[in-house]
Amino acid sequence: MSSAPTHWVLTLVCVDQPGIVHAVSGAIVAAHGNITESQQFASADTGRFFMRLQVEASAAREEFEAALAPVVARFGLEWRLDVVGRPTKTLILASKASHVVGDLLYRTRSGHLSLDVPLVLANHPDLAELVGFYGVPFESMPVTDAASKAAFEQRVLDEVEKHGVELVVLARYMQILSPELCEALSGRAINIHHSFLPGFKGANPYRQAHARGVKLIGATAHFVTSDLDEGPIIEQNVVRVDHTATPAQLMATGQDEESRTLRQAVKWFSEHRVLLDGARTIIFR
Amino acid sequence: MSSAPTHWVLTLVCVDQPGIVHAVSGAIVAAHGNITESQQFASADTGRFFMRLQVEASAAREEFEAALAPVVARFGLEWRLDVVGRPTKTLILASKASHVVGDLLYRTRSGHLSLDVPLVLANHPDLAELVGFYGVPFESMPVTDAASKAAFEQRVLDEVEKHGVELVVLARYMQILSPELCEALSGRAINIHHSFLPGFKGANPYRQAHARGVKLIGATAHFVTSDLDEGPIIEQNVVRVDHTATPAQLMATGQDEESRTLRQAVKWFSEHRVLLDGARTIIFR
Amino acid sequence: MSSAPTHWVLTLVCVDQPGIVHAVSGAIVAAHGNITESQQFASADTGRFFMRLQVEASAAREEFEAALAPVVARFGLEWRLDVVGRPTKTLILASKASHVVGDLLYRTRSGHLSLDVPLVLANHPDLAELVGFYGVPFESMPVTDAASKAAFEQRVLDEVEKHGVELVVLARYMQILSPELCEALSGRAINIHHSFLPGFKGANPYRQAHARGVKLIGATAHFVTSDLDEGPIIEQNVVRVDHTATPAQLMATGQDEESRTLRQAVKWFSEHRVLLDGARTIIFR
Amino acid sequence: MSSAPTHWVLTLVCVDQPGIVHAVSGAIVAAHGNITESQQFASADTGRFFMRLQVEASAAREEFEAALAPVVARFGLEWRLDVVGRPTKTLILASKASHVVGDLLYRTRSGHLSLDVPLVLANHPDLAELVGFYGVPFESMPVTDAASKAAFEQRVLDEVEKHGVELVVLARYMQILSPELCEALSGRAINIHHSFLPGFKGANPYRQAHARGVKLIGATAHFVTSDLDEGPIIEQNVVRVDHTATPAQLMATGQDEESRTLRQAVKWFSEHRVLLDGARTIIFR
Repeated sequence: MSSAPTHWVLTLVCVDQPGIVHAVSGAIVAAHGNITESQQFASADTGRFFMRLQVEASAAREEFEAALAPVVARFGLEWRLDVVGRPTKTLILASKASHVVGDLLYRTRSGHLSLDVPLVLANHPDLAELVGFYGVPFESMPVTDAASKAAFEQRVLDEVEKHGVELVVLARYMQILSPELCEALSGRAINIHHSFLPGFKGANPYRQAHARGVKLIGATAHFVTSDLDEGPIIEQNVVRVDHTATPAQLMATGQDEESRTLRQAVKWFSEHRVLLDGARTIIFR
Repeated sequence: MSSAPTHWVLTLVCVDQPGIVHAVSGAIVAAHGNITESQQFASADTGRFFMRLQVEASAAREEFEAALAPVVARFGLEWRLDVVGRPTKTLILASKASHVVGDLLYRTRSGHLSLDVPLVLANHPDLAELVGFYGVPFESMPVTDAASKAAFEQRVLDEVEKHGVELVVLARYMQILSPELCEALSGRAINIHHSFLPGFKGANPYRQAHARGVKLIGATAHFVTSDLDEGPIIEQNVVRVDHTATPAQLMATGQDEESRTLRQAVKWFSEHRVLLDGARTIIFR
Repeated sequence: MSSAPTHWVLTLVCVDQPGIVHAVSGAIVAAHGNITESQQFASADTGRFFMRLQVEASAAREEFEAALAPVVARFGLEWRLDVVGRPTKTLILASKASHVVGDLLYRTRSGHLSLDVPLVLANHPDLAELVGFYGVPFESMPVTDAASKAAFEQRVLDEVEKHGVELVVLARYMQILSPELCEALSGRAINIHHSFLPGFKGANPYRQAHARGVKLIGATAHFVTSDLDEGPIIEQNVVRVDHTATPAQLMATGQDEESRTLRQAVKWFSEHRVLLDGARTIIFR
Repeated sequence: MSSAPTHWVLTLVCVDQPGIVHAVSGAIVAAHGNITESQQFASADTGRFFMRLQVEASAAREEFEAALAPVVARFGLEWRLDVVGRPTKTLILASKASHVVGDLLYRTRSGHLSLDVPLVLANHPDLAELVGFYGVPFESMPVTDAASKAAFEQRVLDEVEKHGVELVVLARYMQILSPELCEALSGRAINIHHSFLPGFKGANPYRQAHARGVKLIGATAHFVTSDLDEGPIIEQNVVRVDHTATPAQLMATGQDEESRTLRQAVKWFSEHRVLLDGARTIIFR
């Protein structure tokens, strides 16, 4: 009755057509909601309309949903209603590299990221101590052949199911996921990799980047698809380097960018700021 | 009837209250408009609501205004309807320094800025050749005492009146405007000045900045108020400098930032992306 | 004899005059050293010459010093010879705020910073758990009056003496040091504070910055002097903010910049990249 | 005798070995020179040593060269002695795009770049008015087949010869140079092209970048080699873009970066700050 208002985040997607904003804002008026943040985008590429709203309302979830129901029906809305700040259930996949895992756990502990991490699952045992340091469960399962890979991936699916995982982060996991797993996690698995201008194929890209004398080193966070390193881009960063940097220093610089970029992508995802528009992302920063 | 649609930009401000977006979007539906860009902000400080829309519509201005009329009446909207890309009538005030004036005219000529500059008015004749080079009328009137200052300011007001000037840019004009002129140009005069961390008072700030060994040099573009250099901030930039820079090099660096920052502020203003919220600006980038 | 070469870092300062580089490089040739990094700067302000070299040499410290001795005598060199990467003995002073302390300890643990922290000394007990989490000794002593402040400062001096502390970091310690302690720690105590364009005096600067609608929020790391917040600047950073940020969000943004900026200043100091030239710093990045 | 000192810039390259700095600084002492700027780099990749010095000296060129002669002989130095600020003879090749040509000429006129441009040579007549506006000679020669391409390239070589051209800038010239011309201009021709993360091959890269939803758009300036767009990188920049940008807006953004990046590369080249180390550049900023 007299409960304090809840801060809701509402995201919605539909075919672009006149009247959507009018109808959605009407539903919010009906739910006695106060819009505190609103962003929208109409995609000329796919003809779809995207909207993200933050709304303060003392309406219960059912009331809010009831007010939205006719709009959902009329415009064929895909929508999601959540409470601002609720921790996102996040499964982290890792390998040997500690920098991105350490950064995610440090940022979660300090409150910068609102994540609930039930497990860090790795294909090597190296990170057990680091992860334990942050009080997060850790397990490792070797991935050495098709059978162990299948077992690992089944375990991922089991954990996703068991904990109601909303986001899977490949924190330098370094293994190619099977097309089946990519499909199962579509739109809720994020990967990070280094990025260069120009791009370099093959092994040891930092050595190649050094050989060409690149002046910028970067990283890209993207959704996982079966096309390796080619999923929809969520965030990218670069930093300046110069001729004095050794390949090892370039790698250290690149790893910092990986941590920073993945952390940003995860933060936006957990705040429902990342919407998919075909091969592109809409980021309501 | 079958005319091509016009791309309109609509900005509006009113007291924040439920239902505004619903009502405004209803008016656009009524005018058969298609929203291509929309941004809004509710100010917790002043309790006011701000919105900027770009709308494609074949409706004539009168039709659009008729559709908006009831919303304007109901919510007490301050509003402005313009055509996207229409050049902004801009009077430039200058002194001896060429960098910002040159940059504004170069960017206007190359199409980056959509300005219509009927006159550059200066208190020194030095820039006659530069301004003439860009085919823009130039005049200078010395400002040496109270009488000549009053004459200069009267001339500003006359030119504003004569050409329907929408924006007055103080491009390193370096004179303090009278409170009366500040008032007359309130919300439509933009100034640029250098900025440092920390700030330095008094003469020759670049020498002071050098003496303190600052690592960042910047510039601030702001609306002109009678409080010198204290008007609402529109844009700020900084760049990194180091211990090797002489005071003269710091000044050259600072002037580049001044040009870049003023240009950006003018561009946003001409696109109706700058709205005033008391002592703050809302920038719908 | 056949020992692996050591990587030395040599810094030197003297009155600028012809022949210094020639003489110093001659000493390195004599010590069979190989210069891997070299930077120099002649200050037009103070007439002093600064140089930082990294040198690979199998020479023992005594041999190196013997080779340098005639150059030191001839040019009146102030100099320092250290081994690259040796951890810097660092005393951290803290209060209640956790962000900079947490960042310094996290970066030390991950190997980004080469510090040896014998103690975090605070005037409040709040950070005991955080510091303990990183396995670093923590103690708190209340500072509530002149006597307790004197006791705290005496403890600082005792710890500096006891551990051979090379660097004292004020990690949001928030207390003004006495002129005597400033003097005793001159050139080896670093402070961090927020920075704005323009600067704001007095309490709650983030609220003031919000009221003015600043577009950049930053931080400055500087050496401690008895002139509060006015010591030689080591590093500055800013990030862009916009009108949507609340004062609390501005503060969170500012704290990130404080962590990043202090961490950078400490890293450069520990690598002997920061040299003092009167009120300015020379940073050999 | 009593002439004012000249500000010299000296660059030198040789096989890395002990004693170079000692010997070069000895020659400067002998020429009564005062080092005002000095940078050096030893390349672990090629085993070569690079140095750039600025020296104030009243010595005439012959005296300076005489002092250097024994060092040149002993270390097999490749060297170049020039006067700081002397305009660089620069031939600009262009096509239809105006943005980089306009920027180079604007920056030259405003004194930011120290260039002497005897001719802009284009394969289309479109830029005649723009170039004439800046008072620079312009000629166009169509390139439509092998014969006209050969004629154009011969003209380039003739102009280089005739004016003593030191730098050829491909300002969006858009034609692939013959291997012979690349060879003839090796180390003194600079090209600019757009850059993306990830890279895109084929036509209309901005449309591809839009389709992938890239978040960064950039440009790379590099030396021309017969490997198209693969020469040693001189400078790179990127700027942030978001999902709202159309392909046309991405292109406008990219063109700004091209102008900025090419201008910077040309400036460094003209100041003798760019040295070649195999496939990499050493940039003494």
